[in-house]
Amino acid sequence: MTTLVDQVRSGDRRAIARLLTVVETGGQDAAAALASLYPYTGRAYTVGITGAPGSGKSTLTDKLVAHIRRGGDDVGVLAVDPSSPFSGGAILGDRVRMQDHASDDGVFIRSMATRGHLGGLARATPQAVRVLDAAGMAWVLIETVGVGQVEVEIAERADTTVVVVNPGWGDAVQAAKAGLLEIADCFVVNKADRPGSAETRRDLESMLELAGALDWRPPVVETVATEGAGIDELWEAVTEHRAFLESDGRLVTRREERTRDEVRAVVEDTLRAEASVRCVGEAFDALVARVVARELTPEAAAAALLAD
Amino acid sequence: MTTLVDQVRSGDRRAIARLLTVVETGGQDAAAALASLYPYTGRAYTVGITGAPGSGKSTLTDKLVAHIRRGGDDVGVLAVDPSSPFSGGAILGDRVRMQDHASDDGVFIRSMATRGHLGGLARATPQAVRVLDAAGMAWVLIETVGVGQVEVEIAERADTTVVVVNPGWGDAVQAAKAGLLEIADCFVVNKADRPGSAETRRDLESMLELAGALDWRPPVVETVATEGAGIDELWEAVTEHRAFLESDGRLVTRREERTRDEVRAVVEDTLRAEASVRCVGEAFDALVARVVARELTPEAAAAALLAD
Repeated sequence: MTTLVDQVRSGDRRAIARLLTVVETGGQDAAAALASLYPYTGRAYTVGITGAPGSGKSTLTDKLVAHIRRGGDDVGVLAVDPSSPFSGGAILGDRVRMQDHASDDGVFIRSMATRGHLGGLARATPQAVRVLDAAGMAWVLIETVGVGQVEVEIAERADTTVVVVNPGWGDAVQAAKAGLLEIADCFVVNKADRPGSAETRRDLESMLELAGALDWRPPVVETVATEGAGIDELWEAVTEHRAFLESDGRLVTRREERTRDEVRAVVEDTLRAEASVRCVGEAFDALVARVVARELTPEAAAAALLAD
Repeated sequence: MTTLVDQVRSGDRRAIARLLTVVETGGQDAAAALASLYPYTGRAYTVGITGAPGSGKSTLTDKLVAHIRRGGDDVGVLAVDPSSPFSGGAILGDRVRMQDHASDDGVFIRSMATRGHLGGLARATPQAVRVLDAAGMAWVLIETVGVGQVEVEIAERADTTVVVVNPGWGDAVQAAKAGLLEIADCFVVNKADRPGSAETRRDLESMLELAGALDWRPPVVETVATEGAGIDELWEAVTEHRAFLESDGRLVTRREERTRDEVRAVVEDTLRAEASVRCVGEAFDALVARVVARELTPEAAAAALLAD
């Protein structure tokens, strides 16, 4: 395992892929690997990219990767899809996407999907970020595929969160409803060559106006990702936000707060796993039957389950 | 405490009010009271009433109470408001609402609000239902004030769940977005004398159509609660749903499933309370500082917190 970690630190792409699989699989090996990686993390800057399915996030991410590579930095991409049971580098999407960057050792793209429960993915994502971080990627883009609670939670834990919407009536309102207004550091109106782009931009800006005075006013950038239009402006917005966070210690505070959340989440997950183990099986069924028969209160049944 | 429970079982309104306060306050007294009440529960039929603020739920509930009373049954009302810090019988709203039924011992209305955390309210509601149940109320109406996750969770745990919307463009769509389509056993378009009522009804029906074949197709009833219009039809829909549930053991299965959920929720709440106790204070801060300094992984910090 130490050798694998060393290989990852030297940027070996096959080692990165293997260690990501170890981390996703979980268990003792993952814990050991993450522990030996951990001292070498904290350098990568993470950008979360979220929005409704079909809004063009993947294309946008690919263009950002090319843009970052032109600047010379290494970049990792985690495409997180809680709705898919497929994970790892073997799926078609990854291979197709990787083709553009196949000969480029400075790019690493990985899909992550649900293994078991959703909470697992929310926890596995920061761990996968650490692998790419330790491998020397200066940037890690975290692209989430849907706009469910888990996706939003994953995207908002990035240093900078980009929310992608499309032109069209009500799209800005949908974004607001999905809770994206609160988490966005930057908005993208992608497919901006379609009708309604200006209106969607205006809707977003007026909703941001309503949200009141903010330290950072999220810019709204129009892009046509398929043609590469607006990518420079988007990247400028991301790096401006980064500069804003770095200017007065906000990035450090934000990351500290995230660390607190992450430790808390691990504690909760551990206890939740314990709860779900206790709430299945014969002992649980027997206690529930006694509650149904009015012999025990739900509280007494729970106490009995926890006393074991 | 045994005397108080006996008084509640005889339907003594002051005893009911006192015991509800004991249950809301929690702790040893509440646990003891709930344990001695529990054998006498399971007879009341519960109806959840939910919908956006301002949709007229309170007026509708009051008219249902009067309707039920004309049939001779006793009825209890729990008005659950997670957004309010006020609880108990002392608040103005309760007194105003009680005036109509002040001389009627067959009606008991109680507001419940957040004491501490929201989860607490979701847990306290079934406990309060048990007090009213043991007091001999044939019906308990559970009115929730908003459409947040907790309110929806509380309303859907009733035997029959009524979702209230208003006429007007997009209201049906909002209901769908809030997850109300899935939990409704019956829809009410209240304020049906306003423009757009037929459209809202049609929207609901076509969304139900899209949801596919269901064992129970939730009826859509139009009401003008302020004038008492449609209340008979609404009550007919509720009692039809009850008959449907009772016809082939569905009610028993549904309540068993709810019992399982409730025991599970108590176990989770207990462990979550444990987690939040562990994730504050100096020991937690010190561990987080070590994680930030990259001396410990989040997992190792969590394990250290849980090992104490």
